[in-house]
Amino acid sequence: MTESVLDYMTRLGRAAREASRVLARASTAQKNRALHAAAAALDAARAELTVANEKDLANGRTNGLEPAMLDRLALTPARIDEMIEGLRQVATLPDPIGEIRDMRFLPSGIQVGKMRVPLGVIGIIYESRPNVTIDAASLCLKSGNATILRGGSEAIHSNQAIARCIQLGLAEAGLPAAAVQVVETTDRAAVGALISMPEFVDVIVPRGGKSLIERISRDAKVPVIKHLDGICHVYIDIAADLDKAIRVADNAKTQRYAPCNTMETLLVHEGIAARVLPPLAAIYRDKGVELRGDAATRALLGADVLEATEEDWRTEYNAPILSIRIVDGLEQAIEHINRYGSQHTDAIITENFSDARRFLTEVDSASVMVNASTRFADGFEYGLGAEIGISTDKLHARGPVGLDGLTSEKYVVFGDGHIRT
Amino acid sequence: MTESVLDYMTRLGRAAREASRVLARASTAQKNRALHAAAAALDAARAELTVANEKDLANGRTNGLEPAMLDRLALTPARIDEMIEGLRQVATLPDPIGEIRDMRFLPSGIQVGKMRVPLGVIGIIYESRPNVTIDAASLCLKSGNATILRGGSEAIHSNQAIARCIQLGLAEAGLPAAAVQVVETTDRAAVGALISMPEFVDVIVPRGGKSLIERISRDAKVPVIKHLDGICHVYIDIAADLDKAIRVADNAKTQRYAPCNTMETLLVHEGIAARVLPPLAAIYRDKGVELRGDAATRALLGADVLEATEEDWRTEYNAPILSIRIVDGLEQAIEHINRYGSQHTDAIITENFSDARRFLTEVDSASVMVNASTRFADGFEYGLGAEIGISTDKLHARGPVGLDGLTSEKYVVFGDGHIRT
Repeated sequence: MTESVLDYMTRLGRAAREASRVLARASTAQKNRALHAAAAALDAARAELTVANEKDLANGRTNGLEPAMLDRLALTPARIDEMIEGLRQVATLPDPIGEIRDMRFLPSGIQVGKMRVPLGVIGIIYESRPNVTIDAASLCLKSGNATILRGGSEAIHSNQAIARCIQLGLAEAGLPAAAVQVVETTDRAAVGALISMPEFVDVIVPRGGKSLIERISRDAKVPVIKHLDGICHVYIDIAADLDKAIRVADNAKTQRYAPCNTMETLLVHEGIAARVLPPLAAIYRDKGVELRGDAATRALLGADVLEATEEDWRTEYNAPILSIRIVDGLEQAIEHINRYGSQHTDAIITENFSDARRFLTEVDSASVMVNASTRFADGFEYGLGAEIGISTDKLHARGPVGLDGLTSEKYVVFGDGHIRT
Repeated sequence: MTESVLDYMTRLGRAAREASRVLARASTAQKNRALHAAAAALDAARAELTVANEKDLANGRTNGLEPAMLDRLALTPARIDEMIEGLRQVATLPDPIGEIRDMRFLPSGIQVGKMRVPLGVIGIIYESRPNVTIDAASLCLKSGNATILRGGSEAIHSNQAIARCIQLGLAEAGLPAAAVQVVETTDRAAVGALISMPEFVDVIVPRGGKSLIERISRDAKVPVIKHLDGICHVYIDIAADLDKAIRVADNAKTQRYAPCNTMETLLVHEGIAARVLPPLAAIYRDKGVELRGDAATRALLGADVLEATEEDWRTEYNAPILSIRIVDGLEQAIEHINRYGSQHTDAIITENFSDARRFLTEVDSASVMVNASTRFADGFEYGLGAEIGISTDKLHARGPVGLDGLTSEKYVVFGDGHIRT
């Protein structure tokens, strides 16, 4: 008799919960040893990883996966190198667990502070890229959390091969095997079970397309740290330095088109539009970026600029397309961003102190920038050392989520027999 | 034609969202002015408040409300004083909004830090006590959030009278009336609507009985900051100072029986039980506390100690009842707490450094204490200045929740035309 998916997931959940208690008190040295040993195991298993990955790729081709999907699925030698390097980098990061802050005496005589602790068990649900298995497992391990990883069914052999390397690392460090578990069934009911076990899973981090994330957020009975849209703006203020404006607006759009922190809409103050837009448009046209604009923009740049519709302002293109709007001032720019944006990352280009200050205060986004490219919104660029994703939520973790986002804080209280009166 | 409840709540939600943008940029002085003006309005409206409250009390008596419920509903002159004082105290607290921390240069040359910002719109759902209207409104206002308050139907006249005073305060400070809205219908569908509008409401804080909170957590489409059980433990270690142990174990149980941070289970190391339990039991018996114990405890204290069942270890009595277990050491105490506890507040009494250190690390509760009474787990005692409740969640706010728990942080990035390469 085979085990039902629900029973299987419950078994994984229970084992993860037990392992999480061991991980919570694992020493920094022990966690780092597991990371280094897993890196060594990956390095030794290159042939095995390639065989497993080729099985997935062959199945993918048979099942008619798109080339972009096949590309994401491929474990090239360079990508294996990156996974190994990633594990070693996470080992070098400071251990957030056990940090005690703000310890101080209170009038009653007790001392109160906060101690950083793991969340417990983290469920990660992701799509085709097998390297996410290493990214997620290493960050969760370093932050003292047990992990249940549910990758895409198209990457199942690759993920299992990677998981074996992680298991070797855990064993080497004397940590429980259930500290990192890869779901071995491709049955979709496994996802439903994973997001419905608050007794075993403390938080779910979905990584992938918007429809996956929306579905999980809707159905989860467990808190979700999630990233939805990345509709990012650059606003070129009337007091902008022209060179900086052009450099940043170029970079924010064209450095890479697919990332969530790429600019999708450029807002320009009407008082500077005639000076900044023509040279910028020339750059974009050179790079093959399709421009869509409001009436004023089209009047300035010519009729080959398509008309931007209401829909454009709400669209994350993830492509060489840019919508442009000329606004009558800072107020209208902020209103546009708060109305159409996705609270992800927005930047103002200005030399005016008060405009910068107001933009920072009033734009309600996870990252708000002055005179810098939206492309900087990233855990590595922010100095977090690593990133499990970017959160567009407001509660718990907001913006790029590093190790700290996978932790909680508890109050610690020291007394000397103190009682409340 | 009357408006449907859903349309009514949508109207409130939309108005709250708009007001939240104004509040987010309101100055500290403006928010404090509103708090002081509301306090003055309450002071001037004592007669009106009493009339409204008497209407609620009369309805309550007609509807057969229990005396304890009627007591909680009553707005005595002393309670009106407390509300006025509460508003003034919140005005004296430092404004958390706009605080920028950890601003530092990164290798790319950008500066990155975090700025504290309001969550946006907070929905508060509570039961009979009308003073929660003031507590919740004042904390949300000070932290720059708009609030939608849904109190118990039995307190509707009292809550509306209080709301009029808050409105006077808002008007005096030039803040929008929709910054604080009291739901004016007693239709229960209003709660369902309030917890299902993520576009208008950022977080729900339910205050009240466990069944209310469980129902809201289950049905909400919006994040919930909640408090479930308070099954708190004191563990008397073998290395405990006897006087401190007795003082703290007495206080943790008997200072007040109803609060969530009152001890429900006492764990005692077998090596100290014979010295500490008899004098403690004498104190408890003097104060009329019913004792329930495991076999070892009963053997020590006598047969009038009832047998503690598995159910007792999981019960929050909120009453003069205490369960006692003798454990064979620290390990078993920690295991008991993590198994039966509610991750609220747990204390160890010990003079042994390593035992204290291990208890702090391994007990997975919102507050973990050494040689102090669990009764200290409270926003005021922790120096937060105020408290909207105590969270037993791990994400976002954990333990006593003050103004900071009603805020989020966004990343702020400063550059000088920096681009990513």
